[in-house]
Amino acid sequence: MTTRWKRDVRNHGYHRKVADPDDDLVFDVFARACTSRPTLEHVTGRWGVLALAALRDGTMRFNALRRRVDGVSEKMLAQTLQTLERDGFVNREAHHTIPPKVEYTLTPLGRGVADRLFTLIEYVEGSMPAVQRARDDYDVNAGTR
Amino acid sequence: MTTRWKRDVRNHGYHRKVADPDDDLVFDVFARACTSRPTLEHVTGRWGVLALAALRDGTMRFNALRRRVDGVSEKMLAQTLQTLERDGFVNREAHHTIPPKVEYTLTPLGRGVADRLFTLIEYVEGSMPAVQRARDDYDVNAGTR
Repeated sequence: MTTRWKRDVRNHGYHRKVADPDDDLVFDVFARACTSRPTLEHVTGRWGVLALAALRDGTMRFNALRRRVDGVSEKMLAQTLQTLERDGFVNREAHHTIPPKVEYTLTPLGRGVADRLFTLIEYVEGSMPAVQRARDDYDVNAGTR
Repeated sequence: MTTRWKRDVRNHGYHRKVADPDDDLVFDVFARACTSRPTLEHVTGRWGVLALAALRDGTMRFNALRRRVDGVSEKMLAQTLQTLERDGFVNREAHHTIPPKVEYTLTPLGRGVADRLFTLIEYVEGSMPAVQRARDDYDVNAGTR
């Protein structure tokens, strides 16, 4: 069952549940209980963002993905991928070979997310010299506030 | 001091610290110790993403921002904004009025991040009907795996 929220721009993002299906209903991450908020958290979570971005390069096996997402534990990566699979962003395919082979691929929906995450990542990476300067300034001035 | 990493595409994202400043150095969120990774986490964190996206609408006072980012505690919002200010994404201005007024505005660097987050948010909100269908399918099939 889907929970939907009505956007009420007059009231700074306050949202209420609406019964009338003919109303203009939207999902809104600013509404605390809207189901879009945890979904956003799945794709922006520490490991979710890196797993999705890594899969932009193509289908990957679990262990290759684990090497790429440097620092993730086996347990956390498995949990992250399961959540992304359930949301429909990642497709998991198990091949019944010896040893068993499990491969992960972005779905078209997941590719849309991953492309947008990649744009963000590139921007953040490119911003790092400016971020470092801002931090240095902040820390120098911290004593004088 | 800036930590930089050399991208080595031959080896699935393995990165090593490089001493030669003439090398083609990049920041890379896939490298566990690269300073870009925590920075990405600041802007994709649960409250960071919503605070930045909210500030796209313009300068906001702390309490207005807190109402907009539905569900955030005073402490978490203050902490989130301080981190974003230190990174150079948000500008904090304190007016010495009675009562004191504190306003937050995106810096140009922060606007670049917020615009990209907004694109992601819109995509995730628009994907929710498909995400709901994927979850329903997943849960129905969970017993037969």
